[in-house]
Amino acid sequence: MASTSSGAPPVSPLARPLPALSAVRGVRLGAVAAGIRYRGRPDLMLAVFAPGTTAAGVYTKNRCPGAPVVWCRMAQASSPTARALLVNSGNANVFTGRKGEETVRRSAGAVASMLDCAPENVFLSSTGVIGEVLPVQPILDALPAAHQALSEDGWAQAARAIMTTDTFPKAARRETRIGNTPVVLQGIAKGSGMVAPDMATMLAYIVTDARLPQPVLQTLLDEGVQTSFNAITVDSDTSTSDTVLLFATGRADNPPVSSAADPLLNDFRTALDSLMEELALLVVRDGEGATKLIEVCVEGAESDHSARQVARAIANSPLVKTAVAGEDANWGRIVMAVGKSGEPADRDRLSVAINGIWVARHGTVVEGYDAAQVDASMKQPEIRLTVDLGLGQGKARVWTCDLTHGYIDINGSYRS
Amino acid sequence: MASTSSGAPPVSPLARPLPALSAVRGVRLGAVAAGIRYRGRPDLMLAVFAPGTTAAGVYTKNRCPGAPVVWCRMAQASSPTARALLVNSGNANVFTGRKGEETVRRSAGAVASMLDCAPENVFLSSTGVIGEVLPVQPILDALPAAHQALSEDGWAQAARAIMTTDTFPKAARRETRIGNTPVVLQGIAKGSGMVAPDMATMLAYIVTDARLPQPVLQTLLDEGVQTSFNAITVDSDTSTSDTVLLFATGRADNPPVSSAADPLLNDFRTALDSLMEELALLVVRDGEGATKLIEVCVEGAESDHSARQVARAIANSPLVKTAVAGEDANWGRIVMAVGKSGEPADRDRLSVAINGIWVARHGTVVEGYDAAQVDASMKQPEIRLTVDLGLGQGKARVWTCDLTHGYIDINGSYRS
Repeated sequence: MASTSSGAPPVSPLARPLPALSAVRGVRLGAVAAGIRYRGRPDLMLAVFAPGTTAAGVYTKNRCPGAPVVWCRMAQASSPTARALLVNSGNANVFTGRKGEETVRRSAGAVASMLDCAPENVFLSSTGVIGEVLPVQPILDALPAAHQALSEDGWAQAARAIMTTDTFPKAARRETRIGNTPVVLQGIAKGSGMVAPDMATMLAYIVTDARLPQPVLQTLLDEGVQTSFNAITVDSDTSTSDTVLLFATGRADNPPVSSAADPLLNDFRTALDSLMEELALLVVRDGEGATKLIEVCVEGAESDHSARQVARAIANSPLVKTAVAGEDANWGRIVMAVGKSGEPADRDRLSVAINGIWVARHGTVVEGYDAAQVDASMKQPEIRLTVDLGLGQGKARVWTCDLTHGYIDINGSYRS
Repeated sequence: MASTSSGAPPVSPLARPLPALSAVRGVRLGAVAAGIRYRGRPDLMLAVFAPGTTAAGVYTKNRCPGAPVVWCRMAQASSPTARALLVNSGNANVFTGRKGEETVRRSAGAVASMLDCAPENVFLSSTGVIGEVLPVQPILDALPAAHQALSEDGWAQAARAIMTTDTFPKAARRETRIGNTPVVLQGIAKGSGMVAPDMATMLAYIVTDARLPQPVLQTLLDEGVQTSFNAITVDSDTSTSDTVLLFATGRADNPPVSSAADPLLNDFRTALDSLMEELALLVVRDGEGATKLIEVCVEGAESDHSARQVARAIANSPLVKTAVAGEDANWGRIVMAVGKSGEPADRDRLSVAINGIWVARHGTVVEGYDAAQVDASMKQPEIRLTVDLGLGQGKARVWTCDLTHGYIDINGSYRS
């Protein structure tokens, strides 16, 4: 089995065990130790898809993306299908200039030769140190072994191979239907903080055996990330490599679907959204130094967009996050964060609840609220902060974790 | 002399001693212990201005401002002049609904009666706990003593009376000229983090004996805050009470000035800007848990505005701030922060310098840069991070401090 390096931090107290995973028809995965940075653990993952697999992706909005993100955008633009995905950990291949682009091109070329496909059918991700050149040779050397290792049961190993400072591997699975046809969705993710110490990147890869045209797949992904991966924040920092890819191998013989709005997709969409939410929350649960998972619910906003901005301002506030770490039901800081979001808000309509108990209503403290009960509830590992702006119907949910000494330890220690 | 409470945190390692202060003609200050929250230290400061003193203010952009900020805006809109300023520490009078408004109205009314002026000529600030009702009676009871204590030499006491979690009092002084007339500028400030633990607010009050019309004063203040108080950030959180007020008593017999663009004001403007920068940096130096002062310089941006956004993204990045705390010359995180700002940036034109040494040029690491020298420079208490976007002429400077265990200690501890 894979293990993280000897000096690995303790597993997050919010960790979840890897669920039971099984095959998804049309994809095989192999993971090997290429020795890119880590020793004695897999750091290179190859997934090979059945011909005709459609692929959809969403990528970081960071204006300085890594070379693999630039490559994926190009690959996606040039073809609706994918034959392979190659991911390495230990080096993010970000801010590496022409050498970085060459590593990407040669890696994709080598996989393409092996599979007899176009390089544009190979998707790539890298995660790890920023600014160091990612040498291509270890990858080229390890590729045959990765190819050899390909197996329908390679999921758990793949989940481990993409870890950097993650303290536990992350995966989720759903079984659903399109029409009467059973289909499977399975995904893995990595991320520990939006950016771990020099270890950039939140990555997630989801595969289904459903048969879906690329535009449908892309729409489902675009919509689903809004309430999952785009609704989490650990430290407000945006990685240069964030990537979520969704592959549909088409091995399930489901009825044809031509639009994401087709009611045939209702169950599938629900399953996909719920799987993405589960993966996203696993990333927050592994947030650097996290001891509490925080759900921020904003309602009564002028619009959903406005609600999301307010929720993010709360979730990104260092003062709110340290208060939760200190088990302090500090609603004054929540009010401050609402105000700083710049979104429409009226102090005299604003209400705040902590773990379901309203502590402030219409701009002033609720006289005689049960402070002892609120304080006691702050000791739970999962905290819910609710704000009702009292203005309209807009609402949003965002998840984050608390800000602790652990975060400072992990990020303030000198690079080794 | 004033002293902070017995459990006071140690003075910031970046602290500066209070400079020599002297009188500014046309203003007298008195500070007393009203017992609002603290015991055995002054917590109420009254300043009384000569008739005809003009007043300019800039206030928090937080959408949930405290009652005193709402009052000051009204006061400023209703008259170009001010007769008094009353500031209490210990309670911010924020999110206190109608009771908070009543406290403000009655406080201003009491001062106005004492001075025989309109309540709208009394400016108010409160700083301290959010969400607790600020009782008016202790203020009314203490006002006569504050009035009694008024003195041209009350500046140092006033600087101490407005402290909350500040670890040192903050003041600055400049002597300059308008035409051939010598004029004085003197100011005090408080702030320790944008928001100290439940102790909201960055406040600054500056007085000059110059004779200047209110619109001129307002323009000078609006422009000056851009490169001083609006260019600092401790934790990206925006207080509900931030206030900077500039008063001109008119006691200096300087030549008349009718426009802020008048060349007669060149020296005065320089002195004011430099005084505001000094006060703003004192606030950063007292940032919660700060061990290093960080200057972020962005150049080569498409515009000054764009440069400022990029500089703020860097200064607000928890990953950059923890890296500096760890004395880690982690330029990869600076690149990440540039990218997440969303401003125009081209990875292949981007250059980064740490303490004056270029570590990355045009999108890739500088081969053979003196890493040992850069690492050694990170041990200094003042750190300069420079980014050249290579796109245009826009530039900006922003100051912040590092993010340390001290910040978590201060903000993550349970309210006492």
